[in-house]
Amino acid sequence: MAKVSYKKFRMKPRITLVSDEKFFGRGVSELLRLIDKSGTMQEACKIMDMSYSKAWKIIKRVEKELGCKIITAKSGGVKGGTTILTDEARDLVSRFDSMEEDVAKYTERAFKKYFL
Amino acid sequence: MAKVSYKKFRMKPRITLVSDEKFFGRGVSELLRLIDKSGTMQEACKIMDMSYSKAWKIIKRVEKELGCKIITAKSGGVKGGTTILTDEARDLVSRFDSMEEDVAKYTERAFKKYFL
Repeated sequence: MAKVSYKKFRMKPRITLVSDEKFFGRGVSELLRLIDKSGTMQEACKIMDMSYSKAWKIIKRVEKELGCKIITAKSGGVKGGTTILTDEARDLVSRFDSMEEDVAKYTERAFKKYFL
Repeated sequence: MAKVSYKKFRMKPRITLVSDEKFFGRGVSELLRLIDKSGTMQEACKIMDMSYSKAWKIIKRVEKELGCKIITAKSGGVKGGTTILTDEARDLVSRFDSMEEDVAKYTERAFKKYFL
């Protein structure tokens, strides 16, 4: 058997929150971060090259699964009303990002163990 | 902040072997297992509801990345020629499956840590 070297490859991990179907992963986490940063769904969708209707559908799905709002309107301020994340959404994004980083580190170690 | 319970959810992990692009994951591993079991690509494609041309493209891509054949013809026998996996393919599938199981177990523990 020819010895295959796996040194030039890497193993990419991906985690997704699932109920009966997948409903929250890297993409949604990124979308929420961008909404929070820009203050508008429109701007976040533009950056992600995603349609407003798709983003809205994704957000409604997450809200249905969690049983609470994940974005909310913040009225007033210099720029007028903006869209911000609820505490529940911040909490979810924070947990998800931490877990994702943790699993990524483990996957890197596991790749060395099983392939290198 | 309303307390969201994540008990009814699970976190699904997925690992994929990557060079410049993804080229080997759960789907390809399953395809190879089915080819080996049935002895023909046709039968494996049928079970996976995948076109022969797509399966062939996937296999060629993996062979190009690894620099070796992953399926080979075995001539003769009662049923005539069959298609089997090369030792290199068996080795890859075995490593991948073991690592996938390992990462899945870790992800389950990590989910408890970060979400429950």
